[in-house]
Amino acid sequence: MPVYADPVDGLAVPAALLQAWTARLVESVGTPTDIAADVAEILVASDRRGIASHGSARLPSYVALIEAGVMDPAARPVRDGGRPALLRFDARNGWGHHASRVALDAAIAAARTLGTATAVVHHSNHYGIAGWYALRAAHEGMIGISLSNTSPLVAPTRARQALIGTNPIAIAAPAGRFGAFCLDMATSTIPRGRIEVAARRGETLPVGWAIDAEGRPATTPEAALAGALHPLGGEEATGGHKGYGLSLAVDLLTGVLGGAAFGPNIIGLFSTEAESDLGQTFVVIDPAAFEPAQAFESRLEGYLEQLVAAPTRPDAPGRVLVPGEPEAEAERRSDERGVVIDATHARNLTELGARLGVPFEVSASSGPDPSTPR
Amino acid sequence: MPVYADPVDGLAVPAALLQAWTARLVESVGTPTDIAADVAEILVASDRRGIASHGSARLPSYVALIEAGVMDPAARPVRDGGRPALLRFDARNGWGHHASRVALDAAIAAARTLGTATAVVHHSNHYGIAGWYALRAAHEGMIGISLSNTSPLVAPTRARQALIGTNPIAIAAPAGRFGAFCLDMATSTIPRGRIEVAARRGETLPVGWAIDAEGRPATTPEAALAGALHPLGGEEATGGHKGYGLSLAVDLLTGVLGGAAFGPNIIGLFSTEAESDLGQTFVVIDPAAFEPAQAFESRLEGYLEQLVAAPTRPDAPGRVLVPGEPEAEAERRSDERGVVIDATHARNLTELGARLGVPFEVSASSGPDPSTPR
Repeated sequence: MPVYADPVDGLAVPAALLQAWTARLVESVGTPTDIAADVAEILVASDRRGIASHGSARLPSYVALIEAGVMDPAARPVRDGGRPALLRFDARNGWGHHASRVALDAAIAAARTLGTATAVVHHSNHYGIAGWYALRAAHEGMIGISLSNTSPLVAPTRARQALIGTNPIAIAAPAGRFGAFCLDMATSTIPRGRIEVAARRGETLPVGWAIDAEGRPATTPEAALAGALHPLGGEEATGGHKGYGLSLAVDLLTGVLGGAAFGPNIIGLFSTEAESDLGQTFVVIDPAAFEPAQAFESRLEGYLEQLVAAPTRPDAPGRVLVPGEPEAEAERRSDERGVVIDATHARNLTELGARLGVPFEVSASSGPDPSTPR
Repeated sequence: MPVYADPVDGLAVPAALLQAWTARLVESVGTPTDIAADVAEILVASDRRGIASHGSARLPSYVALIEAGVMDPAARPVRDGGRPALLRFDARNGWGHHASRVALDAAIAAARTLGTATAVVHHSNHYGIAGWYALRAAHEGMIGISLSNTSPLVAPTRARQALIGTNPIAIAAPAGRFGAFCLDMATSTIPRGRIEVAARRGETLPVGWAIDAEGRPATTPEAALAGALHPLGGEEATGGHKGYGLSLAVDLLTGVLGGAAFGPNIIGLFSTEAESDLGQTFVVIDPAAFEPAQAFESRLEGYLEQLVAAPTRPDAPGRVLVPGEPEAEAERRSDERGVVIDATHARNLTELGARLGVPFEVSASSGPDPSTPR
């Protein structure tokens, strides 16, 4: 499980203020108010959950796409064919967050009458954290699955270069006292950001994280950044071909199914050279189709109780965790004492806000309480 | 990718003869003819695809379940609630293969009109290879997903003992000249059978395969067989928590959703002490909901063409593979010169047939052609 440590140079910003500022900033570049509200909610949800890489820190990149004319901030998604339980939406190159929220909500509504429904979005852009959409279905008492294809950063098993994305899979369900089960994972061993962290720390890399530019195991962050990530499982001997297959499966269910770009045809992450044309897919299943919804949730809660009570390995850093627990804990802490953003993040938002006439003047405390390190 | 080597002491048996004998044997223990035909087709499909662990070699175990009175060979699945796109079937403790085929076919039929449908089976038994069901949907031009929970053999991340199954995920789709894309994977790093092979070969194990009885990394097959398998990703540093989450996700979508047993509550593999009460789930998506079916298949074929042509790593044993290619190649060879079964497998079937009055007298050649090793 990733454990989200607060940055040492952190600034605690109240989540509500950060979200309101984000919405104003997004509006300032031509986004209608309701769309900006979706974008701000989803970006700040990522910050609140401790996943700084997918939240408001990405605002400069999104603005760059809009200013380069390769993303349309005012576009509204439209229904684009399908059947009662399988819906397609054309995001029309607008905000991925909004198009995905609209598509997901349509799938939730259809699942209420049909039992399950799937919504596929094409001609889309980055949609933030996969888990937000899965959790939105879970909050409706349903099982939610959220998938997206992404820029090629991962080398297929045996290949020397990156040809496929870190294509995330999220799945969530309501889980009683645990709130929700929420698996939210890239199909690579680790995200590229983890290698950037290793570079800052001067760490060496374990086998199974990445390969270098010649296709050999990368032992340094620099070599890995010039190479490609391994799919989940790492080398072939430890099941890397399974992670490769999972990444392809996500692409098959998103870009290939929806008619968006896929695999090596997707442009670089936040490249301003062309439209991204990403694909996202949402599967919603309503357990209430079989029995009172509470029955499913109670079974899942009981199952998770068994897991968290299990005896642990001698070197375990703590008890067995439920997928999504660390993020839910980060969310609770963020809502209690603010979202902690690092100095670079704060400076970038300050500069962006100043340039766009939306000053980043959020009421902030002086930093995280050093007496409660995680 | 697993490469399925023929056993050195192999006997080549024509697949059609093996399938006909399997059907007769299954009938001899009280299975109606049509159900026996499903069971035989699916078991021998596993043998033909080179996955000996899930095929006719398991017949003695299935017969033991029936003779112990914990599996009903004559039971027929019945519809058990749901909504138009989300169907549930009670397998009534009958053959998992037959109940799963019936449920899958119902999902395929519903997907034709609704675009997608999901069928959930509970009170079921082992269903063989997950991939067979996904491929059946692919042969109808659809995307098929096949999931099952299984006996606990895998330790959750941080846990000291096996609490969750190797819970397989299969996904297939039609893929032009590649026949089909077919990812068929356990959510553990390796199957338990791979450790048994390592024991026979006297190999040591890499970190990430298994833990010993005390929860330490298992370095010998003997230690691993007394311990538990790692989820895909291995240790936490290499993403093992993702494989753990995937195993749980499969259980959530099968046993927990359908109301079957799940996790640590599932009895041991082929235990004759009680009913298995496994859960299986099938998701079917019809790309023809959006456009002519050929369009999806052509895009997928083109994508796979790009992957197999990619430059390879210096130590790669061959070109990049498409998920399911090794199994499809094994199938082609099996249909050409017979299914190759090892001496123990042949002896077990001979003994079983003799005892049940269905002699295992299949016309067999003397063995695989040693001039074409893989």
